[in-house]
Amino acid sequence: MTQSASISRITILGTGLIGSSIGLALREHGFSGTITGWDRDGAQLHVALSRGAIHTAAEEPFSAAAASDLILLSGPVFSILEWMNELAPILRPEQLATDVGSVKRVVCERARGLFNAPGQATFLPGHPMAGKEVHGAQHADGSLFRNAVWLFTPCTDSPVSVPEGRERMEEWRRWVQAFGSRVMDLDAARHDELCAWVSHLPQLVSTALSALLEGRFPEDEDLRAIGGRALREMTRLGASPYSMWRDIAHTNSEPIQASLLALEQRLAHLRENLRTPELRDEFEQANRFRLGPARAASPPETEPDPTDHEG
Amino acid sequence: MTQSASISRITILGTGLIGSSIGLALREHGFSGTITGWDRDGAQLHVALSRGAIHTAAEEPFSAAAASDLILLSGPVFSILEWMNELAPILRPEQLATDVGSVKRVVCERARGLFNAPGQATFLPGHPMAGKEVHGAQHADGSLFRNAVWLFTPCTDSPVSVPEGRERMEEWRRWVQAFGSRVMDLDAARHDELCAWVSHLPQLVSTALSALLEGRFPEDEDLRAIGGRALREMTRLGASPYSMWRDIAHTNSEPIQASLLALEQRLAHLRENLRTPELRDEFEQANRFRLGPARAASPPETEPDPTDHEG
Repeated sequence: MTQSASISRITILGTGLIGSSIGLALREHGFSGTITGWDRDGAQLHVALSRGAIHTAAEEPFSAAAASDLILLSGPVFSILEWMNELAPILRPEQLATDVGSVKRVVCERARGLFNAPGQATFLPGHPMAGKEVHGAQHADGSLFRNAVWLFTPCTDSPVSVPEGRERMEEWRRWVQAFGSRVMDLDAARHDELCAWVSHLPQLVSTALSALLEGRFPEDEDLRAIGGRALREMTRLGASPYSMWRDIAHTNSEPIQASLLALEQRLAHLRENLRTPELRDEFEQANRFRLGPARAASPPETEPDPTDHEG
Repeated sequence: MTQSASISRITILGTGLIGSSIGLALREHGFSGTITGWDRDGAQLHVALSRGAIHTAAEEPFSAAAASDLILLSGPVFSILEWMNELAPILRPEQLATDVGSVKRVVCERARGLFNAPGQATFLPGHPMAGKEVHGAQHADGSLFRNAVWLFTPCTDSPVSVPEGRERMEEWRRWVQAFGSRVMDLDAARHDELCAWVSHLPQLVSTALSALLEGRFPEDEDLRAIGGRALREMTRLGASPYSMWRDIAHTNSEPIQASLLALEQRLAHLRENLRTPELRDEFEQANRFRLGPARAASPPETEPDPTDHEG
């Protein structure tokens, strides 16, 4: 990307999978400034440094942030909210902070009063729809955001007050596009509602099914041998870490509860209609659902499994 | 495969995805006899013939079957049961029939009295754990069974009475291994129980989720744009055809109902515990579930999508 002089010092708080992947993506796409990282887990920070995702490892998060043009908050939602509290008093209006948290309404609510008003630093809530079921800087990948959607939920109730802040927001959007992402703006409440359906519900279904099978068939090698692509896909996210999902479950409870309840009712409807024509109606409605072509680019994390089931 | 003279004439009833894939696999692995096909859908039969999955298209199913060493029954479960009724009186003891149906208890029950007793033809119930969410001979693939598990549920209450039948059963197992499949024998009831969990439950979850989203967000382009790998995997089987699943739902209702109910309860438990430590216990139990490495071989039907969600 052709670089303006506006963002040359970046601090990444949280150098796990996403934070380190952003550091790698910046460098792969020509960022020539300096990237400082900090993580509460010293091992993650060390891996991020050794993989070149950051230039410098900070000993504490706020001195580097205070001296940066862009501060990227990359961690579970509650960590992001804490960082916002601590950064707000020490940042200047022309400094831009942005996050990659999975839930956006609580982030926008927290930003209100702390950011974007006269005399306050600039904040742009963001959420790249990219990730892996594994975590940690060792899995970081500069191409992770290629062909992904990167959502922003600008805080419209307190628009950014200084031109430098606005310019840096535009510059950060251009970086995201340079990573290969498609930028989309959404209202924060609509973001949380849609993500409950497309992301949080699939995660909890995968967790429920994996936990159920592990509890019911703990040592059954036959079950594990027979399970093909369908079961593999359905349980892949069962490996996702609680540490991240606890915060999502806490901060997006109502939309998640609504989506879970709706699916429970739909499954009960199928269960009660295995031998009635209602089953045909359900299959026909399901057949109409289309996500469109896969936004394929880089190879998947694991080898694809050709075995499916068809019954 | 080195070929004995025992199976040289094969008839495939049902030349859709699985039947035609078996025809292609036989020819790719050196079968030098003749393969006759029949399908109630003349278009499927024509595609199977033009793709070389069969040598000859029969006008009706039973004359060719009566003249074959091996008769392969490849269709929805109720079609298989009908063919078994019609074939039993016209086949001789040294002729082997085998099926690829998704449910095995009803097939074994139907075989009792019709096959495997003195004077009756030989029957070996089978079920390759391979397929695609699309159907039809146009999607047939001779490598579909590579690295898959091919289950057999021998009818132990009426063991095969003639040596030719036993020899042909062994020969058919060797062909399946030549296709690259791992052969496993299971009791029919256990087969149906395990398949309810690893195959039928994932299908119905995918159907329920796809139907729910289609009903609730029929034209929402944002939802479809945001949905990444997680949603794609969870809804892929929503495209599966009712025609096949109706028979599975009818003939394996009780194990499917039990698995659906268990999952509904588990989802309700998650829904009620989004903000309690129970959520951690569920994630930790899910984290322990392991399917083992993917049995990767041929490329997947569609391009993989690198975008995941992690929140």
